[in-house]
Amino acid sequence: MKKQIKVALKTAPYKITISKNIKDLTDALSGVNKSKKLFIISDSNVAKLYLKNFCFQISCAGFSVKSAVIPAGERGKNIEVLSRLYDKALKDGIDRKSCVLALGGGVVGDIAGFFAATYMRGIKFVQVPTTLLAMTDSCVGGKTAVNVSGGKNIAGAFYQPSFVWINSSYLSSLDQRQLKAGFAEIIKYAFIFDKNFYDYLLKLFKNAFIGEKDFEYIIYKSCFFKARVVEKDEFETKGLREVLNFGHTFAHALETYTQYKKYLHGEAVAVGMLFAAKLSFALKICPKETCVKVEELLNEAGLIFKLGALNVERLVNLMKKDKKSISSKLRFVLLKDIGKFQTGAGVSDAVVKSELCRFLN
Amino acid sequence: MKKQIKVALKTAPYKITISKNIKDLTDALSGVNKSKKLFIISDSNVAKLYLKNFCFQISCAGFSVKSAVIPAGERGKNIEVLSRLYDKALKDGIDRKSCVLALGGGVVGDIAGFFAATYMRGIKFVQVPTTLLAMTDSCVGGKTAVNVSGGKNIAGAFYQPSFVWINSSYLSSLDQRQLKAGFAEIIKYAFIFDKNFYDYLLKLFKNAFIGEKDFEYIIYKSCFFKARVVEKDEFETKGLREVLNFGHTFAHALETYTQYKKYLHGEAVAVGMLFAAKLSFALKICPKETCVKVEELLNEAGLIFKLGALNVERLVNLMKKDKKSISSKLRFVLLKDIGKFQTGAGVSDAVVKSELCRFLN
Repeated sequence: MKKQIKVALKTAPYKITISKNIKDLTDALSGVNKSKKLFIISDSNVAKLYLKNFCFQISCAGFSVKSAVIPAGERGKNIEVLSRLYDKALKDGIDRKSCVLALGGGVVGDIAGFFAATYMRGIKFVQVPTTLLAMTDSCVGGKTAVNVSGGKNIAGAFYQPSFVWINSSYLSSLDQRQLKAGFAEIIKYAFIFDKNFYDYLLKLFKNAFIGEKDFEYIIYKSCFFKARVVEKDEFETKGLREVLNFGHTFAHALETYTQYKKYLHGEAVAVGMLFAAKLSFALKICPKETCVKVEELLNEAGLIFKLGALNVERLVNLMKKDKKSISSKLRFVLLKDIGKFQTGAGVSDAVVKSELCRFLN
Repeated sequence: MKKQIKVALKTAPYKITISKNIKDLTDALSGVNKSKKLFIISDSNVAKLYLKNFCFQISCAGFSVKSAVIPAGERGKNIEVLSRLYDKALKDGIDRKSCVLALGGGVVGDIAGFFAATYMRGIKFVQVPTTLLAMTDSCVGGKTAVNVSGGKNIAGAFYQPSFVWINSSYLSSLDQRQLKAGFAEIIKYAFIFDKNFYDYLLKLFKNAFIGEKDFEYIIYKSCFFKARVVEKDEFETKGLREVLNFGHTFAHALETYTQYKKYLHGEAVAVGMLFAAKLSFALKICPKETCVKVEELLNEAGLIFKLGALNVERLVNLMKKDKKSISSKLRFVLLKDIGKFQTGAGVSDAVVKSELCRFLN
């Protein structure tokens, strides 16, 4: 059984297929990659588990397969690694008619997408996400990037994949921490868009066991929500994607502060969402009850963290450096209620600082 | 007096303005860059002559100006230099609403364009070309790129400028060699498209002096020809841009062979055009007379070179590595007559090799 979500972009519409059948992948590949020459980019963790077998299966369908393995983790997403990918692809004879396939999590998708967007001025690109975060968030939207020494995702492009193939079996190899972190962006959609989805997730997390059907459902729901937002604002020029940034103003600052070493992205987003809810309450945008509900779901998902000592001044400065900050005022996506967001409001430094002090203590 | 050429691209139409009046530049800038924050990229040669004064003039029109200077020449067009540009821009507070301005030749335009295409996933971009080659060729078409260790222009993007401002006064500082090399791509348009333009150029080169009006005319004509081709095939997906590659199969191989040290791009293209003409004759596609005419114009322009000893086998292998080569056969744009080209024909290695042997002796 396969489920499909259409991402109806004007420039480059594509489909996300949720399926366990490799034939769904190879058939789609044959459709977009007539020359049958594939350049698979993966990371050291994923490669160890899946790359050999994956390449074998693809080869069996008649593709000529080359591959490159980047270091796992955020440290693999920089210009030096990108530069080595260009050299490796050239050596492997990858040309304009070849296709890049990203097999991995968000980092692999980001750098492989940017590589595909820029190699010989753009070749085809397919995503096979292997983490929950990548399946539910980064595989939709066409944002690709690498980090530079001065900041995260500073070099990048909007570049849509030809299609995305999601096989939830890959989730079985994720450790509990990664899996939990992956729930953060899923929970985000419940907070900003859908009270029913909130209720569903709350019930789900209270169960001891999350089954395959549940995973496929939450992947489907998340891709669906994100696709609807992205369709309205493909190049993030209309401000309509800002809602996806719920929890991220704080999260990006926290990640930079801790040099991407202490928290996974989802963990930082979880903390950021709780902070955004508390800020919403402080600004009298939502009732106390909303904060309680936000905390409850995050708690059931195992995503409540005690942050160590952090310098408030430095955190605020990092928030201001966020590339989405376009004026001197800090911008936050806020909650009016579970399932109802509010964007567009700048918040004064003083309010953010005082709320941060309370939050961190 | 200003002349304008429209480049009517579907995704991003823009204008090329030939003018000596800085107000034409600053007015257009105000139109595209509301935040009035500019990041000027130039190279060490151009910066020495023009940057200070240029920044001053732009500042006077109310812009906040930051600048970065890259090493002059092809060696400035690589990923390390690009990486430093990202860091410098971040440090200078360049954000999504800022605009990149390329002040320089083709190398500056290529790297600045790629920088603009990828900085924070794309910010606005304006070109102020200072060399004849950049004014007549690289400022039209939206091709941006940097070199990687394995090859030229391997990392890049199609990214159109918001507008191009051409001031032919900059030509006065070019040395004779650069100026002559700049004529190669202009001559190319005569060879492939326009017998009358051939006659005009032949007469012009026979004069001792080329005046300002002549320069503006040939800049106008070249931009016009290129714009018409680019409009039909913005992303080089239809093969219609191939005609612009006349002389370039050989030129790229020669440049790589001599490591971009011995010949300027225009010089390599001149040699490549002569070779393509001789190959056309060898293949009985054009009469002997066409070759004679090609040689005559190149000779009048001072663009006939005696090549040193070159290994034919290696040259052919380099031609095959060209990223435009999509099959095992070598592709050349050939001449049927002055002003009439032919594309699409693969030429066997044996014919290319035997013609190369004759050509090099």
